[in-house]
Amino acid sequence: MIFLDNASTTKVYDKAIEAMDKIYREDYFNPSATYKGGREALSHITKARETIASYLSVKKDEIYFTSCATESNNWVLNNAFKNKKGNIVISCGEHACVYETAKNLASKGLDVRFAPINEDGTVNVAELLKLVDDKTNLVSVIHVSNETGVINDLATISKKVKSKSPKTLIHSDGVQAFMKTNTNLMRLGVDFYSISGHKIGAPKGVGVLFIKSGIHIAPYIYGGGQEKNMRSGTENVAGISALGVASQCYKELYNLTTIEANYNLLLSEIKSIDGVEIIGNTENNSKLIVCASINGVRAETLQSIMADSGVYIGRGSACSSAHSGNRVLSAMGIPDSKIAGAIRISLSPQTTQEEIITATNVLKENINKLRGYQIG
Amino acid sequence: MIFLDNASTTKVYDKAIEAMDKIYREDYFNPSATYKGGREALSHITKARETIASYLSVKKDEIYFTSCATESNNWVLNNAFKNKKGNIVISCGEHACVYETAKNLASKGLDVRFAPINEDGTVNVAELLKLVDDKTNLVSVIHVSNETGVINDLATISKKVKSKSPKTLIHSDGVQAFMKTNTNLMRLGVDFYSISGHKIGAPKGVGVLFIKSGIHIAPYIYGGGQEKNMRSGTENVAGISALGVASQCYKELYNLTTIEANYNLLLSEIKSIDGVEIIGNTENNSKLIVCASINGVRAETLQSIMADSGVYIGRGSACSSAHSGNRVLSAMGIPDSKIAGAIRISLSPQTTQEEIITATNVLKENINKLRGYQIG
Repeated sequence: MIFLDNASTTKVYDKAIEAMDKIYREDYFNPSATYKGGREALSHITKARETIASYLSVKKDEIYFTSCATESNNWVLNNAFKNKKGNIVISCGEHACVYETAKNLASKGLDVRFAPINEDGTVNVAELLKLVDDKTNLVSVIHVSNETGVINDLATISKKVKSKSPKTLIHSDGVQAFMKTNTNLMRLGVDFYSISGHKIGAPKGVGVLFIKSGIHIAPYIYGGGQEKNMRSGTENVAGISALGVASQCYKELYNLTTIEANYNLLLSEIKSIDGVEIIGNTENNSKLIVCASINGVRAETLQSIMADSGVYIGRGSACSSAHSGNRVLSAMGIPDSKIAGAIRISLSPQTTQEEIITATNVLKENINKLRGYQIG
Repeated sequence: MIFLDNASTTKVYDKAIEAMDKIYREDYFNPSATYKGGREALSHITKARETIASYLSVKKDEIYFTSCATESNNWVLNNAFKNKKGNIVISCGEHACVYETAKNLASKGLDVRFAPINEDGTVNVAELLKLVDDKTNLVSVIHVSNETGVINDLATISKKVKSKSPKTLIHSDGVQAFMKTNTNLMRLGVDFYSISGHKIGAPKGVGVLFIKSGIHIAPYIYGGGQEKNMRSGTENVAGISALGVASQCYKELYNLTTIEANYNLLLSEIKSIDGVEIIGNTENNSKLIVCASINGVRAETLQSIMADSGVYIGRGSACSSAHSGNRVLSAMGIPDSKIAGAIRISLSPQTTQEEIITATNVLKENINKLRGYQIG
């Protein structure tokens, strides 16, 4: 099996599983309990917090564990309005968990502004800035697009937004960026940043929200006072610990030279197929995501028959895969006919050149099959 | 080690760990993905949903997975007011995740009413009913107290509330009740019911909210549309599956005769100690929780030195153990002097009589130590 859909999900690293199993069997105490076992459970959380903080170049006190990036993003968006005052600006390239949350706020009559995106999938910064005024509470722009892998220049966006409106806070959904591109949050100038465990070899069910110190936001879940009274609920100790361990594994496996070589190989193999158009901006893209539209082929069918051959590829966000169309690609100005044939292939630090060759051969065979050519 | 603090947390059952490990290693696909692996991941969730539904005597479509009972309770409470209209009534015996959420709503000027509890810890139903009127949106009463184990008569409460105000919805925090007492929700007449994984041998990080069909509540987390658009975010497949498996394990291990015999043994051993007062109502109590106040001893110190001897007991809610005092015991009219000496001992279906004897002997020795007697 060759799994090239890790933009949607990923196998959990063995070391992360081992760390979890130890917690399930031995260190299962409640981290809020004041006796020894509780303190040990708490130490697993502290260690993970320090690891994540170091990879984001922030302080450990700025890291809040949540159940997923969707929760992190909801937390920020749903607290962006005080007494219904002001406005927020999000890009049209956001993942559903930002976009749908913003749409829900708009449906309540709140002032939500949508910044258009360019043909390559990046947000149109000039248009975004036009929407920002001194009443803008929040700007939210995805760091790396989950659809195309295109990278938004957060450092510039933050600087320009704050230059126009110093009090505006900046949020970014960093799910596809964390461990995969530069996520020095001090350099990026963001106030909030969301990450997800299961995109880097940690289990599903754990995420992070970075909240810059000094920034006030209301708690999202009230109760026993966990996470400094900001996100109550008994901590998912095993999941949190596994997130720390998995990010260390990811870092160890990550070799930029190999990853770039693999990306270029994948890109050239896909470009060699007739009637294929790369979506996004290969000069300014995550080297782990390739989005392409294949003429005359329905992506859903292609994905399904490739999975039967043991090669798993993506299309759109898995979260929204049951729905038709693709909101983000549409916002890029891509016509429905091309969106129907849009696939997404994601690499991991462990993907080999052999896997890429095999997978693209299977891709070519199945495209030919679907296009009605004779094979072999 | 003898662990008698499972009101706070619990070891994860081996079978649940095995189920999770299989998912981490093999069935790690995104349940929203439309290819085969995705459908298999989804089937784990469906199976767990069916299991939990059957143990609550409800339909599987009425089960929504969350990250914890604290989230489930926040979901219900935070959506109880539409346009700030009406009022809600909660008991003073609620866990912090209901109580603090309600207090936060009250701080925003919303009409939150607190029903007093009786000396035995049950809600004062007559007083609660006085607070209910035709503008009451929600009544929330904990099923089994996490502090004392006392059981509220939900069936009667639901009936009386709905008789006075038919439109009022009933919520109950069932964390200490699920699998441990009768939780036939049809009989109990509730509209919402929250449960937690880690109180029955599933991992931390997974919970459930039962929402009776036909009842409208806004989604709590927006995004990819998981859980029928009600709770978005990639599902914690392993945790959810483990919750299903753990509840089956719990059911297999649960033997009422043994549990009652163990409870009676524990109760008589504790009663045999000089200067001990049982808190709660032993006639109407979970047979898995004993709360007692020990005269002349600080519970915190006792808990700590017992843990050093390998016997883990509880005191108050672990969530709140860093704080002083005990809000629920205070509301029962127990003076601070007695609260200072209040411990909680929790049994599991696997606790043996030998463990109870050993633990209570260690308890007695340490009480003597703390009281300054000579030992042995």
